Order: sequence, then C-alpha cells, then structure tokens
Amino acid sequence: MSQNFAIRRLNASDQDFAQHLDHLLAWESVSDDSVNQRVLEIIAAVRSRGDAALVEFTQRFDGVDAQAMAELILPRERLELALTRITAEQRAALEQAAERVRSYHEKQKQDSWQYTEADGTVLGQQVTPLDRAGLYVPGGKAAYPSSVLMNAIPAKVAGVPEVVMVVPTPRGELNELVLAAACVAGVDRVFTIGGAQAVAALAYGTESVPRVDKIVGPGNIYVATAKRHVFGQVGIDMIAGPSEILVVCDGQTDPDWIAMDLFSQAEHDEDAQSILVSPDAAFLEQVAASIEKLLPSMERAEIIRTSLQGRGALIQVADMAQAIEVANRIAPEHLELSVANPEQYLAQIRHAGAIFMGRYTAEALGDYCAGPNHVLPTSGTARFSSPLGVYDFQKRSSIIHCSAHGASELGKVASVLARGESLTAHARSAEYRIND
Amino acid sequence: MSQNFAIRRLNASDQDFAQHLDHLLAWESVSDDSVNQRVLEIIAAVRSRGDAALVEFTQRFDGVDAQAMAELILPRERLELALTRITAEQRAALEQAAERVRSYHEKQKQDSWQYTEADGTVLGQQVTPLDRAGLYVPGGKAAYPSSVLMNAIPAKVAGVPEVVMVVPTPRGELNELVLAAACVAGVDRVFTIGGAQAVAALAYGTESVPRVDKIVGPGNIYVATAKRHVFGQVGIDMIAGPSEILVVCDGQTDPDWIAMDLFSQAEHDEDAQSILVSPDAAFLEQVAASIEKLLPSMERAEIIRTSLQGRGALIQVADMAQAIEVANRIAPEHLELSVANPEQYLAQIRHAGAIFMGRYTAEALGDYCAGPNHVLPTSGTARFSSPLGVYDFQKRSSIIHCSAHGASELGKVASVLARGESLTAHARSAEYRIND
Repeated sequence: MSQNFAIRRLNASDQDFAQHLDHLLAWESVSDDSVNQRVLEIIAAVRSRGDAALVEFTQRFDGVDAQAMAELILPRERLELALTRITAEQRAALEQAAERVRSYHEKQKQDSWQYTEADGTVLGQQVTPLDRAGLYVPGGKAAYPSSVLMNAIPAKVAGVPEVVMVVPTPRGELNELVLAAACVAGVDRVFTIGGAQAVAALAYGTESVPRVDKIVGPGNIYVATAKRHVFGQVGIDMIAGPSEILVVCDGQTDPDWIAMDLFSQAEHDEDAQSILVSPDAAFLEQVAASIEKLLPSMERAEIIRTSLQGRGALIQVADMAQAIEVANRIAPEHLELSVANPEQYLAQIRHAGAIFMGRYTAEALGDYCAGPNHVLPTSGTARFSSPLGVYDFQKRSSIIHCSAHGASELGKVASVLARGESLTAHARSAEYRIND
Repeated sequence: MSQNFAIRRLNASDQDFAQHLDHLLAWESVSDDSVNQRVLEIIAAVRSRGDAALVEFTQRFDGVDAQAMAELILPRERLELALTRITAEQRAALEQAAERVRSYHEKQKQDSWQYTEADGTVLGQQVTPLDRAGLYVPGGKAAYPSSVLMNAIPAKVAGVPEVVMVVPTPRGELNELVLAAACVAGVDRVFTIGGAQAVAALAYGTESVPRVDKIVGPGNIYVATAKRHVFGQVGIDMIAGPSEILVVCDGQTDPDWIAMDLFSQAEHDEDAQSILVSPDAAFLEQVAASIEKLLPSMERAEIIRTSLQGRGALIQVADMAQAIEVANRIAPEHLELSVANPEQYLAQIRHAGAIFMGRYTAEALGDYCAGPNHVLPTSGTARFSSPLGVYDFQKRSSIIHCSAHGASELGKVASVLARGESLTAHARSAEYRIND
C-alpha cells in the first residue's frame, strides 16, 4: 500500500497557500432533499403514532425483532448488570476516567448571583439545571463508552434530575461497555432506539419516552438532520462534522509520536482530518517517514490512509508565529502544541476546541480521561462555539426587582425610549410607576 | 369595538385545563417550502455573486435606488451624526439605558481559569471573545433602538473587536434613533441591507461585507429561515417566536397597572401572548374591566385586541402554589410576579427568561433600561435557553498540559478504554507516553 501513498505538503509562504488551505478545510455537511424528506416523515410519524411508530422503525431500520416498546427499554438495573460483565481493568479505567471528568466539570458550574443598587433595586441572574436531558449514543462501530461519559457527566454535574439515553442496537447487539459507562455516568434510563425516530421521540415524547429539554450526542446524517429539525422544540448541541487535529510541532518531538497522534485522528473515519504544522522542513519529512513506517502496522490502516491522503497535510511555516496564525485560521477542534514551553503561545491562540500542551499531552489522553470534554467544536466552529460543558445543561433567568424609587426613575427613561419606538402601552405601563 | 371583545377565561382546576393550556400555548414557526426555496436561492446568489447580488436584492426587496455597494455602507461618522439629530432627552435616555445595560452585563463576563494537579498536570479553560459579531436589526415598524443596545452591548462587553450591523432601509428611510443607539452601543460599521441576503452576506462575507462569527438579532420569517440555514457556518442566537408575558398576581396590584402590563406585550403584534394568573377570581374580573376601559385609549388598540382575543387568557388558580406550577409549565419569556414578597417564590421558578419581581417592576422597565437583556427565550424555550448575554459572545478552549508523570498515568487508563473501543492508534499514541 505504501508505494502509492503520499501525504500532501503545503508551504505557508507559497503565494496560493491561502487558497490551498481553504480547499483543504472545505467541509459542508449537506442534508440532501431526500434525507430531509425521510427525516420529516419519520418525525411526523413519531409525533402522531408515538410508541407504535418507534417499534416499527426500530424493526425496519435496526433489524430488531421487538413487538412492543417494553422490549426497547433498559432499566437502571440492566446498566448495573453491564458493570459486572466487563473486565475489572475496564471497570477501573471507566471509573477513573469518570472521576476525572466529573472533577474537571465541577469547575464549570455556574452559580446564581444578585446585587442591590443604592435605591434598593435588586438585579441578578438565577441559574438552574434543565429538567431532563436526552443523550444520543450511536450504535454499531461508533458506539463509544467514552462519549457516554463525556455527554452524561456534565448533565449530572449541572444537576439535571433525569438523563435519558437512546442507543440503537443493530440486530439486537448490546454493547456492554457502553451500558457500563452509562451506569458509571449516572444515566437514569436507556431506550434501545436510534436514528431520526429516537431524536423525534426525545423531542416530542411518546407514551414511553419522556420529552426532554435538550438532546446531545453525535449521530449519522439522519440523526444530525433530525436534530436540526427539532431545534427550537428542544435544545440541541452542535452539529458535529468530521473530527480533526492540528499538531504544531517545533521539530523536537519524536516523529513516531507525532505520526501516531495524526493516526489517532485519522482512524476515526475517512473524512477525519490530520494536519501537522512545523517550521522544521526536515522534521516534516521525518514524520512522513514515520507515517510510511508505522501505517502498515495499524489495525485501521485503510481508513487512516484514505483520511491522510484525502484530507491530511504537512505544512511548512516560516516560524512559530506563522504556525499560530495557521492555527487561528483553522480554528481546529484539537490543537496539539508539541513544543517547548507551550505556555508562551497560549495567549495567542484565539480559536481552538481544546489545546493539548507539550510533548506528553497526546490528544488521546484528552479523549478519554484527562478531564476536559471530548465533545468539541469541529470544522472551524471553534470560532464561535465551545466544548460541551456543564453550562450546556444550565440556563439562566434574569432577575429584576425594582424598589418604588428605582421603578420611578427607570420609568422616566423607559417612557422616553418607548415613545420613541411608538410603543405607548410600554410607555404607559412604565409611567404608572413614576411617582414624583 | 369593546362590545365584541372578551378575553378567554380558564380555571386551573377544570379537568381539561391542561389541554386548553397546551392549545393556548401551541406555536410552531414553520418555514414553508416556498420560503425555504427562496432563501436558499438568495444565499446561493450572495455566495456566488457577492456585492452585486446584495445590491440587486436591496433594490428589489427594499425599493432602494442604490447602484453600488458603497451606497449601502454607513461609516461610524454617520452614526455620530445621528446622535446629534435626536432630541437631548432621547440621547440622555439612550445613554442612561446603555450605561445600565453595560454595567449589568459586565457581571456576566467569564474569565479563564486553570488548576494544577499534584503531579504537575495543568487543566483549565481559556475564555476568548469572538473576532467579529453581526447584528441584524429589522427595518420599518419593528426598528427598535433598544434592541440595538441589547444586542450590541453584550458583544462589546465580551471584548468582540468588531461589531457589524445590518439594517434594511425600506424605500431609503433611515431611523435616526436606531443609528444613534448603534453609536452609543459602540457598533463599528453599518450596512443598510436586510432580509436573507444580509444574513448570507454576514455568514459568508462579500467583497464589502466582512464574514462574521455569529449573527444575532430578530427578523421576519426570511431572516429566521436564513439564520437556520447558515447555522454551522456561523453561530446564531435563538430563533425567536412571538413575544409573551405571564403575569402572576395575588390580586393586590392596581388592576389598571396589570391591564397595561398585558397590553405592553400584546401591542407588539397580533401573535404576541399575554396571560394573567391569579388565585383571586374577583381580581381577574377587575382586570377584565380595566382592559375594557383602557383599550379604546390605546394607539395600537386593534393589535392589542387581536392579540388578547386570539392568544390571551385570564387563568384562575387555587393558590399561589398552583400559579407557580402554571408558570413552570409555560416557561414564559417574561414572568411578572406582581405579589407581596416575591422572593419567597423565586427558588420555585424553574423556567423563565426574565423574572420581574414585585408590583413596581413593570416588564417595560426591563425592556429598556433596568440592565438585564430584553432578548429572551420565547415559546417555552426557557426550558433550555437563556437570555442573550456576554456568554454568547465568548467561547472556551479546554487546556490540558500533562506532566511526564501525569501523561504516563493517564496513558494507562486511555489505553484500556481506547482498546475497548478498538481505536488502536489512540491507544498507541497514549502508550508512547507511558514511562514505567
């Protein structure tokens, strides 16, 4: 395989670099009309026929031989059973990861606040958890226990009383590690349903599936399209694109380590993107050689090769300043700063989902157990969005409590502005409270 | 007019109350196929032809006689001019409102944090502002200077270097109060474009309009549909439904005040919703009488009447506990607690955009100048979303900096979990850092 393989090389000082980079990064998730149409039909069916539609779709799409909704429900006890079916080493790893994720996310919790002004007027913000959150977990090959931890734990830390999980079980196959992770993370109920039908059930509720306030978790194009359609009826997390990593290296890290870090992203799927940036041209070639050398030994060699060939790149830059510029342009989901003294660059990083600092911080550590969330903004959306966090399961209510004097003074200002907008009921409502 | 008018009465102890309430609250914003089709065409045209498409659409939809994009740009100086064209009273009111809004929002600013673990591993979160925010301001009758303050000030408080505003000017008509508000709020540049074409320009950029990272602000169905379509390419704020107020009153507030508070919501548009809940049946009738009495004197009497008749209600409850239950079921955009000692109920309010406490705190005060934002979650979305705030213009990057020892310990956990997910590149990347 290796003789045909060459990862793309770019040089940031080339005139057409910006265009090449734009082209390399271009990604648009398009739900075509037929997907939209199918999804809208599924949503309508679940809304009108509830459980019956869920059972039908699950038979049809997942090849599950269920006759009634009761067969698609796993109680908390089943999750506890799963915990006894995995190895002791796996259980310990899940529990350690969960503990670290919980402890990091505790720091994200936001509290209510208030302050009182001189005239006695109180202003503030009340922070409360969602009542109920829904967690979508993909079935089959993409069923990741780590994702269960990363999605459910922030909800529980936020204080969400009920976390409901849906996970399809193609041909009835249950993943014990996923169920064990759900147990460790504190998931309250599991339904073995998936696809657009599961999203619709969580958004609108059925006889058996309770309506949730927000749906989080990754899924295929049907799931993503369904989430987009139910947005507004419920909250949703971001619509994730393919995963990506940008490694910035000063040329002093073991090239095998860097090659493997690039592989760890590329092995997710053919559309995943792994990019290395370095001011050291010789080092880029060493990494290319490591890639050639290590690739044949990888279990997912074909996926890695396709991903690196189609969307990977080794980018030479003039210096670290230019490397940081490229990083900010890409706004990567994962940014590895595999350099000496990475702290010196931190303040210059404007956009990144997560920043892995120093030669020891492999992205994989963050994927599983460092503590921060692995659900991160993809495809440049780190320009405006954040890792999944406790804040996604909390919401705020403004608090305004005017004193008589405060209302009188504010009433005068409000009256002028309301009349300027021709909203006279607003003005008169404020004027009633003026007391001169 | 009044002889035909009767606002709906409901009683929370009636058997079919839940159904009646569901029916009353039902609201679904539907972008029909033709709107979607038009919007997708407009977006495609702006992406491919940039400024030329913007000029064409602005001529066609806004009746503006512009020949080139340069005629659709207002520099900062034009905003400063507007400030001299409004009355001194208006300018003072705008500045007081802006000052209070700014000072409240300063409290929402989030800071970066880090902590160091025993083995030297550093974890944290870096908080940064967006690079550029786009603010949509509707033209014509819905051009509200207060909305300019409420959308632009949080962005500026967050530290967004550039805030770009778009506002259509139907038949060339500029609203000086809106431009003055933009000046006071610190808006950097204004384009006099609107509709789906303005949203597309902000999302993708044209020769003249810079691409932004997030688009906020209300608009008609074309604007809302366009925002939904560009979501992912840029961030968007929530898709707003019609405005609503829920007043909970113990029966001791002046019924004229309460009637006017209901009007202040109803006057926005025919779909706006005003609901009063009280355990005092006689008081509900007094408010109904105040409505009858005051309605003919209102400038927007027809809109108010249509709104109250179509979507308003007076709801009798058994007691305050039931009133709070109804409030949580509705999850209102605006909740007025026009009662004695409103603090006692605060902890029981689980869902509300903003809570106006006590008899003096008219919602109108919050709309203009109390300090908290008036962009609030509508149609029950307070179940999962928050007022617009500084946090909408900041984003977070996770920070992970493992010590050699930390990476070695975490590597063992990551290796077990990665192998459990059959992601061996992840496992091997982590294992390279194990140092036993």
